[in-house]
Order: sequence, then C-alpha cells, then structure tokens
Amino acid sequence: MDIKEASLKSHNEWKGKIEVVSRVDLTNFDELALAYTPGVAQPCLEIQKDITKSYTLTRRSNLVAVITDGTAVLGLGDIGPEASMPVMEGKCALFKTFADIDAFPICINSKDVDEIVDTIYRISGSFGGINLEDISAPRCFEIEKRLREKCNIPVFHDDQHGTAIVVLAALINSLKLVKKKINEVKIVICGAGAAGIAVTRHLLASGATDITLLDSKGIICEDDPNLNHVQKEISHLTNRTKLKGGLADAVVDADVFIGVSAPNILTKEMVQTMNKDAIVFAMANPVPEIMPDIAKQGGARIVGTGRSDFKNQINNVLAFPGVFRGALDNYITTITREMMLSASYAIANLISDDILDEEHILPDVFDKRVVGAIADAMKGCII
Amino acid sequence: MDIKEASLKSHNEWKGKIEVVSRVDLTNFDELALAYTPGVAQPCLEIQKDITKSYTLTRRSNLVAVITDGTAVLGLGDIGPEASMPVMEGKCALFKTFADIDAFPICINSKDVDEIVDTIYRISGSFGGINLEDISAPRCFEIEKRLREKCNIPVFHDDQHGTAIVVLAALINSLKLVKKKINEVKIVICGAGAAGIAVTRHLLASGATDITLLDSKGIICEDDPNLNHVQKEISHLTNRTKLKGGLADAVVDADVFIGVSAPNILTKEMVQTMNKDAIVFAMANPVPEIMPDIAKQGGARIVGTGRSDFKNQINNVLAFPGVFRGALDNYITTITREMMLSASYAIANLISDDILDEEHILPDVFDKRVVGAIADAMKGCII
Repeated sequence: MDIKEASLKSHNEWKGKIEVVSRVDLTNFDELALAYTPGVAQPCLEIQKDITKSYTLTRRSNLVAVITDGTAVLGLGDIGPEASMPVMEGKCALFKTFADIDAFPICINSKDVDEIVDTIYRISGSFGGINLEDISAPRCFEIEKRLREKCNIPVFHDDQHGTAIVVLAALINSLKLVKKKINEVKIVICGAGAAGIAVTRHLLASGATDITLLDSKGIICEDDPNLNHVQKEISHLTNRTKLKGGLADAVVDADVFIGVSAPNILTKEMVQTMNKDAIVFAMANPVPEIMPDIAKQGGARIVGTGRSDFKNQINNVLAFPGVFRGALDNYITTITREMMLSASYAIANLISDDILDEEHILPDVFDKRVVGAIADAMKGCII
Repeated sequence: MDIKEASLKSHNEWKGKIEVVSRVDLTNFDELALAYTPGVAQPCLEIQKDITKSYTLTRRSNLVAVITDGTAVLGLGDIGPEASMPVMEGKCALFKTFADIDAFPICINSKDVDEIVDTIYRISGSFGGINLEDISAPRCFEIEKRLREKCNIPVFHDDQHGTAIVVLAALINSLKLVKKKINEVKIVICGAGAAGIAVTRHLLASGATDITLLDSKGIICEDDPNLNHVQKEISHLTNRTKLKGGLADAVVDADVFIGVSAPNILTKEMVQTMNKDAIVFAMANPVPEIMPDIAKQGGARIVGTGRSDFKNQINNVLAFPGVFRGALDNYITTITREMMLSASYAIANLISDDILDEEHILPDVFDKRVVGAIADAMKGCII
C-alpha cells in the first residue's frame, strides 16, 4: 500500500485528527452550577470589566486559530475550504503535539480579501492567536497586513514566516561551516510566491545584501507588467540594475541557492557554475528543485530539502510551534521582525559546533528543545 | 464561599473549560507522512471530488460550532464577545459530556445582522452543525432564518428551540396527569423574547389553540407600535380579538402558565384565579416568576422551574445534546418542526406512567437515555 492509500485509509479510520474535549467534570448539579449557570455569570462579568481577564478565565491563552481560504493548499492549488480541512486538522494536531497549543481549524468560504479579513477579524476575540495557512499570493500579503493592523492578537502566516525563519536558521549554520558572511554571499532565491518573498525579506533583514529573486519565468524585474505589486516592490531591492535572465544566468557565481518553486529545475550543470562551497536548499515538495546526490555531484557542499528522507530537512514545524508558544506565553500581540530573527538564531544555536557538519545544519524536527528555545528568544525581545 | 466566588476561583484554575487535542500520534516521520505531508494530499483530493467526504475524512461529522454575538448572555444582557466566552465554553463542555459531540465556541465581534450572517456562513464549511446562543431578539429570528436558508448544515438557536422542546415535553406529561388536552387548555405565556415566541410557535404546532402571549407591559397586541415585527406577526395568532390587559387579567381561568420572563411577577392571588389543576412553569433564572411553594399555596397542582434545587427542572440540556446527536448521526441538514415535536414527545415518553406524578414530569437532566431517545425520534422523521 503506497502512502496515498495508507493515508486515505488512516483518515477514514481516524474520523478527524483533532477533537474538542471538556476540561471540567459535569456529572452532578454542583459541578454544573460552577461551570455553567448560575456560577458562570461571575467570570463573564469579570471579563466584561477587564477584557484581559479572557486570558485567565477562558482557554484563550493557549488557543490558536488555523485559518485558510483553501486557495493554495500544499501543491494542490485552489481546492476550496472543505477540501483543505485535512491539512488544517493536521496542522492543529502538530500544534498540540509539538507545543501543547490548542489549535482549531477554520476554512473560510470566500476568496475576497475584504470578506476574509472581516470574517477573521470578527472571530478573533475567541482566540489568542491566528495562524494563516495556504492562502494564495499576493492575497496573503494584503490579508496578513490588514489583520496585523486590526487585530490585537498575533497574526502569523506560516507559509511565509515559518519558512523564512527556518531557512535563515539553516543558512546561519551553513555559512558558519563554509566560513562565509551573510552580507558577502550571493544568494539566488527561486520562487516569488508567499515563501520566496518572505524568505527574501527575512534574509535582507538579517543582513544579506545580494539576493536575486526569480519566478518561473526568470529573474523578476519591475519592468515586467505581469508582476504583482509585492513582487514589483521587492524587485526594487533585489534587482536594482534591472537584470534579465533565467535561472542558469542567475546562479553563476552564486554562493547560495534557495528553492521554493518546482521540481527538478536546477541542474547539475547549473550547480557547477556556482561558487566554491555552494549551499543548495531545494525545498520544493515532494520533488525538490534538484535531488541531493545530483547537487553534490555538481559541487554543492551543503544540501537541504523539505523532505524527511534526506539529510538537513528544512521544515516549518521547526518554527511555528515555538513562535506561537512564545507569543502566547508572553502575551505578545505583534510578532515582530526582531522576534522572527531571534527565532532563526535560536534554532541555529541548538546545533553546537561539535555537532555541526554538512549533514547536520538543523535540529531534528522532533528535537524537544526547539519550542522552548524559540519562546525564550521571543521573550528576550520584549524585556 | 458563595457560588460566585467559587465559580471564579474554579475558572481561574481551569484556564478554559475545553481543550483541543490530537487524535493522531505524531512522534515519528512515518506518522507525520500519514497525517500530514505528503499523505494528507489524498484525503484533500477525495473531498474536492465529493464534498460529502468531508464527513468521513475530517471531524465534521461530530463537530458543532457554538456561536454568539454576546448580546443576550444569561440574564446579563449585551456583554460583548470576549465576556460571553465562559458561557459558550460551558455549553461546549456540556455538548461533549452529554452527547460526545465536539463543540467549539465562536464569539462574533459584530452586532450587525448582515455581518453576523455572512461571518457564520463563511465558516460553516468547517462544521457539521451550528448552535446559535444568546443572541438578542428580534435579531436572533432573522439571523437564524437566513442561516437556515444559506447553510447546508443544521442551524439551531438553542434559546428558542431547546427551550420550546423541553417546555412542550413538560406540558405533554403535565396534561396527562391532569387529564386535559392540549387543544382545549388555555395557556398564558409570559415573555415575548426569543424563548417566549419559540415556545408559542412550538405549542401552536403541537395543537394548542388558546395561547395568550405577554411581554413586560402586558398582553401583546398588534396595535402596539412598540412591538417588533415578529411579535406583531405572532400576536395575529395569539390575540385575534386584540385583547388588552396585564398578567392578572390574562391568567384568569388559565390552565397553564409558562414564564420565560422576570422574577416574582406571578402572585399567589393570580394563581388562585387560574383553573383547577393549574400548571405553572416559572422558568426565569435564577429567581422564578413565582416560587414553587407559593404557586402551590395558590392552588397550582404542577410546578416546574429552571432550577435544579426544585422538583421538575425544565432545562435546555435535556434537548440540545440529543437534537445535535440526531442531526449529525443522520446527516440532517435542516432541523424541521416535525423533528422538534418528535424530540418533545421522545423526552416526555421517557417518563413511564408508573413514575409520572406531580413531582416527576421530566427525566433528570443526567438521565443517559435522553440523547439516544431524541436522536432516534429525529431519525424516525426522515425514514
């Protein structure tokens, strides 16, 4: 039985990957009177007087909404709200397993940015944080921006920032190994959607100065009328000289290749044109931009992918559980760039120098230290 | 320590009365591949092909949203979305405890009917049913009506229909005891909000012919410009002769008093003017329209209240867990009047003739037979 069949069989048996349970006993009238009427009136009144009490008298302090509109689910594209639920439930199960956070999935039946923002804003008082998921670009940028402005709880688009945090962590340790500095390396990022743009912004914020960003048609350049406004904006920073060209042109003399794009688009020959000690993160899923053995044959010294069956898995699950643990535990209402940079360093620093090598640039996704390290790092940003 | 202090203390300790847990193990890569990527793509695609698969491949078949706008919470009035959460969490804990239904609370930050309807509709694909709660009248009627039209999952406003179902159950058995027929008795209903109007409609549907409905100012009459459109509409049915008058006028020669209104408004003297074998359901909470001992002194033969510390507790918890169990188990998309009438009879029929007496007209709220009896009765309506 292949993984598709096995997963379908398991999903049929599970009948849902999450469950809502009661934390209180309700087996007699005394218990009912405490948890429900008439006793429950008192906590209601306390919250009415002071809304911050919702964090101590309800589940809010440990509760995150995982929200999608179903427009960019996995590699499947726009499959709609109901069909995206298995992914959202899986994400919620990960939140609970990795960070003991209660996460609840909401799939929104609208593709209109205004409607999505309004809907999420109106239910935001029921949660302690919002994790946006699998919303197509460039809508995801606008939705996240507006929700960050409107909501007084943290809003985090994992496809953007989770990816960016983990990529930078991997890059910090890889550069340590090859003894290069982030402000001196030439970086090529392939994929100009949510992840690619977020990685670009995060690396620029961390000190990178030379980034070339490509979409499926080549180096993005503000002259191209097909670019969306976010791509145009970022191409001002990544392509000041209005270079044109394809991936083969872009990777010449590059130190770092970061792929969040499509299968098998980076060839051995292209890697051969990169600088010595090349770093290749080929994260297209399930088939990477280049298979690790071929990248190595082309001369890459460090190779990472999104997959668990190769060394150096670069996976969001290293970031989002800790980011929300940190946000919730410290009542952080806005997850800042500084916090996300700190999270990257916190992940990277878990690999001590005696462990760090070409095949161990990141902690294992099941490493129990990760969540606490990120949460502590975020706390450090607000003290 | 009184109940207020005790409840506040408990809520501070509980830190939320519900919790979202994982139903799957995620401790190694094989488990991750089944529940999350890459395996999860397959159930997504199955649902995309056939949306009904969302009931077998996700938690939808056992999941109800408990939704409020916080405008009519308990007797506290409009306390807002965050402050209403302790009640909604309590309701969700009841759903799980009484019917093993996963229920999740959503408090909406809007009082606009259009916005509330749109918000709920847009998230409805994530749930198997919607339980509306503590929304003020007459907005609640419009909101429920429009959602019933728009959504393809069951929508049920518990303050209306839960109350109505249990009141009719209590009345069926009370009338059996006093040997009167529902189409022959004079019924006075005090309270013309969500519950009073829903009880009126439900009793009319069950065969009642003589109902007088009052609000706090007296018998409602379509001439009154202060009535909302729902009250006007129903007063056509309850007050064809455009009677005016107060509660003291209305209860003369009445067989049944049903109060969903305010404390201590029904006096012993008023009860004395009712017919022989009077039935008094005084359900204002926590202080009823008349205390049971005073009603008895006035000549009432059967007295029920909303309280657990008196005999004959008339409580919604007898209805909503079973109604949603029945709806979910039988993929019912619209909870019809016929189903609600069947639910009333199912509850009433649990009291066999040898048990039925003036102090035992309804099953105990912890009676484990209730949920199954209602669910079976609802199933009977669709076969």
